[in-house]
Amino acid sequence: MMDENGIRAGTTWRRYYCPSSPNYHRLCDNVIEAMARRYGAHPALIGWQTDNEVSGQICYCEHCQQAMRAWLKEKYGCVARLNRDLGMVFWAHEATDWDQIVFPRRDAENNRANPSMRLEIRRFFSDQWARFLNRQVEIIRLYAPKTWTTHNLPGFQIFCDLYDLAAAHDFLSIDFYPKATIDPPGRVNIANDITRSCQQRPHWVLEVQTGTPCTKFYKAPVPRKGQLAVYAHQSAAHGAEGVVYFRWRKSPAGAEMFGNGLLDHDARPRRQYEEIKRLGAEFAKLAEALPEYDAPSEVALVFDYADRCNAAIHDFAMDVNYFGYLTEWHNAAAALGLNVRFVRSTDDLSPYKIVIAPNQFIASPQTASNYKRYVRAGGVLVGALRMGVFDVFGKPSQLTMPGGMTDLFGAEVEEYERVMETNPNSVTFAGEIGGSADCRNWNYYLNDLGAKPLAKYDKEFYAGRTAISINEFGAGRAVYVGTMLGAQPMVKLMGFLAAQAGLETLPKDWPAAVERTRLATPKGETVFALVNHADAPQSVNLALDGLDLVSGETGSVWSLAPLSARWIKIKAKGKGKKP
Amino acid sequence: MMDENGIRAGTTWRRYYCPSSPNYHRLCDNVIEAMARRYGAHPALIGWQTDNEVSGQICYCEHCQQAMRAWLKEKYGCVARLNRDLGMVFWAHEATDWDQIVFPRRDAENNRANPSMRLEIRRFFSDQWARFLNRQVEIIRLYAPKTWTTHNLPGFQIFCDLYDLAAAHDFLSIDFYPKATIDPPGRVNIANDITRSCQQRPHWVLEVQTGTPCTKFYKAPVPRKGQLAVYAHQSAAHGAEGVVYFRWRKSPAGAEMFGNGLLDHDARPRRQYEEIKRLGAEFAKLAEALPEYDAPSEVALVFDYADRCNAAIHDFAMDVNYFGYLTEWHNAAAALGLNVRFVRSTDDLSPYKIVIAPNQFIASPQTASNYKRYVRAGGVLVGALRMGVFDVFGKPSQLTMPGGMTDLFGAEVEEYERVMETNPNSVTFAGEIGGSADCRNWNYYLNDLGAKPLAKYDKEFYAGRTAISINEFGAGRAVYVGTMLGAQPMVKLMGFLAAQAGLETLPKDWPAAVERTRLATPKGETVFALVNHADAPQSVNLALDGLDLVSGETGSVWSLAPLSARWIKIKAKGKGKKP
Amino acid sequence: MMDENGIRAGTTWRRYYCPSSPNYHRLCDNVIEAMARRYGAHPALIGWQTDNEVSGQICYCEHCQQAMRAWLKEKYGCVARLNRDLGMVFWAHEATDWDQIVFPRRDAENNRANPSMRLEIRRFFSDQWARFLNRQVEIIRLYAPKTWTTHNLPGFQIFCDLYDLAAAHDFLSIDFYPKATIDPPGRVNIANDITRSCQQRPHWVLEVQTGTPCTKFYKAPVPRKGQLAVYAHQSAAHGAEGVVYFRWRKSPAGAEMFGNGLLDHDARPRRQYEEIKRLGAEFAKLAEALPEYDAPSEVALVFDYADRCNAAIHDFAMDVNYFGYLTEWHNAAAALGLNVRFVRSTDDLSPYKIVIAPNQFIASPQTASNYKRYVRAGGVLVGALRMGVFDVFGKPSQLTMPGGMTDLFGAEVEEYERVMETNPNSVTFAGEIGGSADCRNWNYYLNDLGAKPLAKYDKEFYAGRTAISINEFGAGRAVYVGTMLGAQPMVKLMGFLAAQAGLETLPKDWPAAVERTRLATPKGETVFALVNHADAPQSVNLALDGLDLVSGETGSVWSLAPLSARWIKIKAKGKGKKP
Repeated sequence: MMDENGIRAGTTWRRYYCPSSPNYHRLCDNVIEAMARRYGAHPALIGWQTDNEVSGQICYCEHCQQAMRAWLKEKYGCVARLNRDLGMVFWAHEATDWDQIVFPRRDAENNRANPSMRLEIRRFFSDQWARFLNRQVEIIRLYAPKTWTTHNLPGFQIFCDLYDLAAAHDFLSIDFYPKATIDPPGRVNIANDITRSCQQRPHWVLEVQTGTPCTKFYKAPVPRKGQLAVYAHQSAAHGAEGVVYFRWRKSPAGAEMFGNGLLDHDARPRRQYEEIKRLGAEFAKLAEALPEYDAPSEVALVFDYADRCNAAIHDFAMDVNYFGYLTEWHNAAAALGLNVRFVRSTDDLSPYKIVIAPNQFIASPQTASNYKRYVRAGGVLVGALRMGVFDVFGKPSQLTMPGGMTDLFGAEVEEYERVMETNPNSVTFAGEIGGSADCRNWNYYLNDLGAKPLAKYDKEFYAGRTAISINEFGAGRAVYVGTMLGAQPMVKLMGFLAAQAGLETLPKDWPAAVERTRLATPKGETVFALVNHADAPQSVNLALDGLDLVSGETGSVWSLAPLSARWIKIKAKGKGKKP
Repeated sequence: MMDENGIRAGTTWRRYYCPSSPNYHRLCDNVIEAMARRYGAHPALIGWQTDNEVSGQICYCEHCQQAMRAWLKEKYGCVARLNRDLGMVFWAHEATDWDQIVFPRRDAENNRANPSMRLEIRRFFSDQWARFLNRQVEIIRLYAPKTWTTHNLPGFQIFCDLYDLAAAHDFLSIDFYPKATIDPPGRVNIANDITRSCQQRPHWVLEVQTGTPCTKFYKAPVPRKGQLAVYAHQSAAHGAEGVVYFRWRKSPAGAEMFGNGLLDHDARPRRQYEEIKRLGAEFAKLAEALPEYDAPSEVALVFDYADRCNAAIHDFAMDVNYFGYLTEWHNAAAALGLNVRFVRSTDDLSPYKIVIAPNQFIASPQTASNYKRYVRAGGVLVGALRMGVFDVFGKPSQLTMPGGMTDLFGAEVEEYERVMETNPNSVTFAGEIGGSADCRNWNYYLNDLGAKPLAKYDKEFYAGRTAISINEFGAGRAVYVGTMLGAQPMVKLMGFLAAQAGLETLPKDWPAAVERTRLATPKGETVFALVNHADAPQSVNLALDGLDLVSGETGSVWSLAPLSARWIKIKAKGKGKKP
Repeated sequence: MMDENGIRAGTTWRRYYCPSSPNYHRLCDNVIEAMARRYGAHPALIGWQTDNEVSGQICYCEHCQQAMRAWLKEKYGCVARLNRDLGMVFWAHEATDWDQIVFPRRDAENNRANPSMRLEIRRFFSDQWARFLNRQVEIIRLYAPKTWTTHNLPGFQIFCDLYDLAAAHDFLSIDFYPKATIDPPGRVNIANDITRSCQQRPHWVLEVQTGTPCTKFYKAPVPRKGQLAVYAHQSAAHGAEGVVYFRWRKSPAGAEMFGNGLLDHDARPRRQYEEIKRLGAEFAKLAEALPEYDAPSEVALVFDYADRCNAAIHDFAMDVNYFGYLTEWHNAAAALGLNVRFVRSTDDLSPYKIVIAPNQFIASPQTASNYKRYVRAGGVLVGALRMGVFDVFGKPSQLTMPGGMTDLFGAEVEEYERVMETNPNSVTFAGEIGGSADCRNWNYYLNDLGAKPLAKYDKEFYAGRTAISINEFGAGRAVYVGTMLGAQPMVKLMGFLAAQAGLETLPKDWPAAVERTRLATPKGETVFALVNHADAPQSVNLALDGLDLVSGETGSVWSLAPLSARWIKIKAKGKGKKP
């Protein structure tokens, strides 16, 4: 591994290897083959985790540079095409030979190189890391064909296309370390939902917070009583088939010596050990009562890997918190009790009632036509802000935003600006939604080309211009959201969208601290996973007779202890009738 | 280009060239000669811009190191003299051979090297870049002897002696990107005035803010209606002969893809395009009505390149915002309707009524005697704070501050200190000015050696000691300002200075948002450029009959639309009589 | 000197030398021998200062790497033992050959390498720098056997074991630059006390703040009238035999040109020069009246070099301000008029009534048994927070905290957490102390194994659990402080400890701004050094007849001018009777 300043990593940390080194590949092969040969048929073996938290890191060494050139050559054929497609003419970066394609050489430079080339570098390294993992899986399969392989994602830090990683393994796993009392519950849910969404089967959580936290990367209070169990219940409700606490006992040495453990360094079982022991017994009961289930999802959030890269590449200019904005929409859906799955913009969208694409920067012709097909057939699509600003190469689209979809949205972006201290603004919603809301970060104002305004700006020279619009297109509706709103107005807007899509949502008096996830068994039974995220008791009314699958209690009104969960199966008479 | 850590720049950004490389010079010569030969006589050619925003960047490569040694050898003759003049004895940096003169090798080191050598490094690179540009101009002149050449300065970022750059070209130009709603109007004025002041003819603005801003370097709201035109009117009033909006259409690729444009990526003419189109028509009328003019300046601000370098070299210790403090004085003059030009401390100062040297760190014997000559002949000179702290080598002066000018100011600095949270202070002005004002950043207290106190400190152990003094010297007056004041007290102090110099200033009820620049035609007619910087209408009374050179309206009271300008020629009867 | 990125220092700053280079050693030897030979017998010579502010800096060059390997080989004998003792197995860092032991290669890596190896690196460089200084001392002694040598410590920045440095010289000295009006007086006291404590005789202050401050490292108001004298009086009261102001006249050139001086660049004597002149006369009188004295110390604070390193190595995870927390305890003792000396945890503790070990991270068997011996014999020991978290290699202890001393404290740590915004807490003290106090930074809650609670937590799931406990052990008491308190509660707690130890403390109405240090002459007379740290007059009542050793005044009630000191010898009748 070599950094952008040409300094090769030493061997005193970890992850000092290069994903393109033939020597390293050969030696890895040897190790993996030896392990797979030795343990592949071992009866205690349940599966394989390859590597650890691969993050798509860029290595600037000569091996990687050569591999990147080969990858580009394969993709573009000739430098003239690469020059044209990536706009290398700017600042005279045109190459006349493949050898002239070089990585940026210095830290400061890296951030100012051609964004289109930077996107290609990200794409290349995503491929390169997926290949590196795949190589390991192939060897393992030779010797252990019946066990699964997985890879544990490092939360949101990753710069790899998750779908490529999922394809390389039986399923994906994720690691997360929520900060007790600090991180909102939605962070755990979105992490689970993303991991679950990339594959055709449930995922695992391979590392989750335990114990007394105190590490190089982590500053937070200790998890409260019940908190560790809540993480597991949340994860299970959001598709996890396995949850592994990290780790059994704190490390006796090395850089992570203060990292968490169910046991402390002195190996004495304490509070958290006992909690997890009890949790094991609960989940054993639950597994018997609920052997299989899924969370049928009405709402889809679009997550295209290239746009996550674009947000990072243009961090200053675009000023978009990619996962942050996805999380805001996820939270709004969760506040209404709606299940969410993540999709790519070119996936089949027909299973979903609402598709939200808040960060759709690249609007390829395929994406645009997929969206039009979806809405024409009756779907509700939500676009936002800088939708369609790029072509597939990460160059600016020459079309008026939202690029190639002004007919779909019945509106086009006229002008946009950052919201700063000197130009605060707000929007007033149309009568069917009502009220007003402050604007954050960006204001895009629209020309109405047939769409109906849902909200208009209150101030500045674009006062009275449309901020949010809705357009009927075929049997469906396309909504464009031109500004960023606070949490409460987003829930209100999401409620409007749910009504448009004919979805039922949580009753108004549902307590905010209780998360309700609606699950379905293969037989069509409905189960509600209820999670109390508050450190105080709560009570909810499901309005349908149900059975607590763990405690065996029955009823329709349920009390929840602080930081606890219940899994309630709705009695047969209520079957098919949504609450 | 090599950085201080020895890392050579890659080719994935821009400005990766070394100003001393013979190979690079040779190849540049070839390109420029080819272009000049091809287009030098082209009828559409109006002039040449060399390079782009040269910033005096330091290259740490071997070519530059050798060139620097040659430059020092030329200047000092022998290392013994260099050792003595630059004080190389400190920390045993004395050289016994030219080859021992080396650039600092690391980032951290750079900031702690001998400040006198750092000043020489800055001076060398200023020369080196001027030579690099001059080389280009010489080739161009061979093939295009009748067209002008210019170079576009990068706002205030530059580390080159502007007078050297001006000498290399027919005139200088400047680029600026004011932040709409955020940057005060004075920033544009001072940028224009500095550029104009370095040469004997008007300058150009070669790049100015347009469009929807969103770049790597820039975070601001979009310019309001009228704002782009205001930038042009301000610039014209402050000496610009040409104003070029940057750029025609947003870049279709590369690192500046989100940079501004009169047209967006979709090339559709919108609000700002229409504004500039109208502006073109206005300026066409104006050019006809006012073919030639200048802004006669009563006030001069001193700007010595070496002191700008000193402020940067000693950024922590001296804690001086060099251009910031110049701007504060410029603003104070502007608030009273006084025109300002920039001068060097050794220039002929006789054209000015008031000369302000707020950052005169180096007081060479030439500077001191020039100031004395000026005051003796009747001028009003303002010195401040650390005046005369250095000798010409950037070593501390061994004279009591203000170095070599205590007779001129009739005062000397006794002691000084930073103003921090634990030692707030204020001054009370003498009766003729009156009132009091808070102190900022630095307090210098003075021994009165004949000068009359204008303000005294209120607190701490130097309570009652002089903060600001005035001294009669020959037919003039020398004022020393030992502390930093807020904007309003500075206007008050400037009003006192104007009265001393016999200058008329704006009436008390003049609206603060309206800038008035007094211009004179070659025939001696007076024209007032009025610029309304507010996003609200304003009205001003010129008290003299005048003619709007664009609209043809006449009168003495003028209404100004939000963010707009008027150019009013005073009717002949008012000629010569200042308002 | 080479940094962690492999960039070799240039010669344009200072301290660019490597402590392991044989060539550099040889040339140093030559210089020192030449100086010692020339001046060793000079009558004006009083002593030698070796080098300047050696800071234990890590050099990453090949010489140092080789030397470090030799040092490790000497210590561990074989790599297998090193692997085991330092826990190199983590992240596969096990070495099979000494050549595989390498320094971290990059800045980011450095911070994440094995903390146990990082501790060894710190220990090695401490040895290496002590050896480097010792080598110089040996040469000096050959030619100047009758004069002393000293080394001036750079305040708290140092990463060397002070006891090793003290052993290499006759005594240690310290440099400090307190920020007038900003830094609390305790900073100067603790710096003096630490330096004094490492040796069997008084120390020197070799550089102390003067003049108008304005340097690369320093931002503060100028010292007020009397402040410079106060620094000297404080230092003398805390064991300094010499105090040297830095420097005579401001430097005429180089990087420290704006550094302080008793004379300014113009060499004119001003306020501060006169103050120091008067001070010289005062100290001449004092030296005559009080030729010898010491400050008998009842309180010891534990300072183990390895733990100071551990705090820095684990800066994020442990989040301990090592000297900051020592200073808080020092301040609490000073507020009660108790004298403090610093000790190592394995020193003879019997001279002290109270021993406080607030940062005892490593609890070696030697430390644990020394503490038990001390308490068993009647001492009062204070442990805190993460006491005993490490073994001697800086690996986590596998014992329950406080490691190996649960019998001594009659308590053990059950769990701990950071205090953040989301989990504020407080403690309520037991009746004998009374009241409550807010918790800061960390909360450790305890199992009582015989100890009596002194304070309990008020909130969260550990409400009612013990925060501070006291345990009778043999003839003494062991107190464990599991949370961090504010300044006032710490004084209260210290008052409780003093009462337990039978120590008299300052009367309740003693003015907080006046520091009182109790000194004893070899004849057993009592002298009080009184220092007024306020910029306002104060009055104190010593309740015993005394004599001002400088002014010759007598009395028991003393007025103190702003920023001034008095040295009061108690009249014979009061001898031996503590106030």
